[in-house]
Amino acid sequence: MNNFTFCNPTRLIFGKGTIARLADEIPADARIMMTYGGGSIRRNGVYDQVMAALRGRSVVEFGGIEPNPEYATLVRAIELARVEGVDFLLAVGGGSVIDGTKFIATGLKYEGDPWDFLVDPSRAVDAVPLATVLTLPATGSEMNNGAVVSRRERNEKLAFHNPKGYPVFSVLDPEVCYSLPGRQVVNGIVDSFAHTLEQYLTFDSQSMVMDRWAEGLLQTLVELGPKLVERHDRYDEVANFMLTATMALNGFIAMGVPQDWATHMIGHELTALHGLDHGVTLAIVYPGMMRVMRAEKFDKLVQYAERVWGATGTPEQKAEAAVAKTEEFFRGLGVKTRLSEHGIGEETIDFIVDRFRQRGWALGERRLVTPERVAEILRDRL
Amino acid sequence: MNNFTFCNPTRLIFGKGTIARLADEIPADARIMMTYGGGSIRRNGVYDQVMAALRGRSVVEFGGIEPNPEYATLVRAIELARVEGVDFLLAVGGGSVIDGTKFIATGLKYEGDPWDFLVDPSRAVDAVPLATVLTLPATGSEMNNGAVVSRRERNEKLAFHNPKGYPVFSVLDPEVCYSLPGRQVVNGIVDSFAHTLEQYLTFDSQSMVMDRWAEGLLQTLVELGPKLVERHDRYDEVANFMLTATMALNGFIAMGVPQDWATHMIGHELTALHGLDHGVTLAIVYPGMMRVMRAEKFDKLVQYAERVWGATGTPEQKAEAAVAKTEEFFRGLGVKTRLSEHGIGEETIDFIVDRFRQRGWALGERRLVTPERVAEILRDRL
Repeated sequence: MNNFTFCNPTRLIFGKGTIARLADEIPADARIMMTYGGGSIRRNGVYDQVMAALRGRSVVEFGGIEPNPEYATLVRAIELARVEGVDFLLAVGGGSVIDGTKFIATGLKYEGDPWDFLVDPSRAVDAVPLATVLTLPATGSEMNNGAVVSRRERNEKLAFHNPKGYPVFSVLDPEVCYSLPGRQVVNGIVDSFAHTLEQYLTFDSQSMVMDRWAEGLLQTLVELGPKLVERHDRYDEVANFMLTATMALNGFIAMGVPQDWATHMIGHELTALHGLDHGVTLAIVYPGMMRVMRAEKFDKLVQYAERVWGATGTPEQKAEAAVAKTEEFFRGLGVKTRLSEHGIGEETIDFIVDRFRQRGWALGERRLVTPERVAEILRDRL
Repeated sequence: MNNFTFCNPTRLIFGKGTIARLADEIPADARIMMTYGGGSIRRNGVYDQVMAALRGRSVVEFGGIEPNPEYATLVRAIELARVEGVDFLLAVGGGSVIDGTKFIATGLKYEGDPWDFLVDPSRAVDAVPLATVLTLPATGSEMNNGAVVSRRERNEKLAFHNPKGYPVFSVLDPEVCYSLPGRQVVNGIVDSFAHTLEQYLTFDSQSMVMDRWAEGLLQTLVELGPKLVERHDRYDEVANFMLTATMALNGFIAMGVPQDWATHMIGHELTALHGLDHGVTLAIVYPGMMRVMRAEKFDKLVQYAERVWGATGTPEQKAEAAVAKTEEFFRGLGVKTRLSEHGIGEETIDFIVDRFRQRGWALGERRLVTPERVAEILRDRL
């Protein structure tokens, strides 16, 4: 096991009717900016619940944060927050709204052009306190300190972490998920599954507990996925999904283990270039990653096949089953897992590989995913 | 799933050579009291490592905290800390030293007789900051806010929680465990196993993730137990054990699920009356708890038998296997799981049952473990 430091200070407030507890959790004299997305919270009642909970408090609203939150939008939010003297941010939404709000929180404490800390994340060191009301289980952003921001004019999508960027608290009421579009639920399942794989499917790392916990999340998603595709208004199923998505990326399964994240880095390019949903990009790339990096990840692929999919046979057969079962799982959720199904061809592959070459990127837990392997992975997915 | 609030602020610093980082973690101007037990840390080098890390800092020592920390000893520590103007506590030891130090930390912020907050734990609301260097994986006290204190003159052993009682940080260097007596390692395995069961073996609670995570800890202990009995100086095995013991009682597997703890409450009496090691009492009581509460815990016993022990057959056979395998596991570690093997008979059972009657206790996740069932459980263990 590798040495590690773990600390996650976020207070998780989970269950039915918990939005009503918001006011107790935010300092009484806070000047709050409530951030949200395209307005679905106005249709599904969450906006009203939040406003009812914050009655009598000082609140500025900032709506319109996009899926894959846009740099220009967030810079406007920072300007508004400065003018309004905001000292507490409340993100009401999914991963995009929360990620965007982390960028705003960091920007408010940053002197200079906020683009700096996307290019050099070591500059993100302070933040205005933020909290969240989660409406879409997927990214884990409600209980971690990372964020991803896009800048469309440059076709870029970049990630940063801020040690002070953990939400002070996050309110997770599973009932708010009942009104989600099915496509977002599916994206959330794929995203949580991929987050877990990124921290698990590396090499034999001697962390027995983390392996078991990651497998537990994967097994839960395998079991829940088809049920949630059918319907997502049964409390216990949605609650288990919501908890799984949070636990998949809050550091709990990352203690002392190597991490991969190459699939995410490749997926981000597909989103930046073609606007594909983040979850869809992961479902496309992961089977290719498993096939091309099969030798390097062999022992873990076999373990994954055995424990998550109950695979039998030779180790070779199990490793093959790992790839096949993963793609079947994604397709069973209705996700198109081939680039060609999205009208994407060779020219995109060439573009991404060139960009990675220019950046000098070698990805993955052992930096073995070179631009050449990225090309192999994406060609496997045509 | 039940509604819940989760927050664990303890910073976990895990791995080889981590004791050297102590000085960076404690405020430079702190007046530190370093607490420890019977002096084993002087023999195994931990004392020297801690003192080297704290060179030039202001440190008062308080040694001699007993296994099952004694009220009178801890009251003396509170008096000394007051005289010395201590404002930071560093517990160097196992669960007893850490629990005792939580009592000292709470007592230093409490006006009046500290016995009050053992009798009425709702009075424990503040604490001097404390941190730990763990030397014995077992109780999880290094990452939770609970403590158990004994008062031998009254044959009592009582627990309390303090919302401010989480260690600020805990340093876990698996190498410090190499010199532990085998008996303490075995007690730690049993203790961690029982902690997990207390949060898992209740009734079908619809928390798929928590079930998987608890099973993951149990599976890890089942796999590691016999290896650790053989030797406990192989880094990865000891590191996995150390991490498991912490994760077994830091709230991570408790989200949204009911909890039992009847076995612990009965076990505490056996320690208070006969001085048995805490782990041994749990190994004695748990098989009886499973057998007597079989109907109430039936579905979970079956699931436990299937997933942790790979049991097959009818549900009845699986439930029976759950009990048998658990006792076999404890006995395989060399623990005597029968009261008679410890020279304990009917009169102790009568005494405990009477005491529970006087206290009006009905224990367990549904308060169904009445004094009458306690009698049944203990008679099963003669």
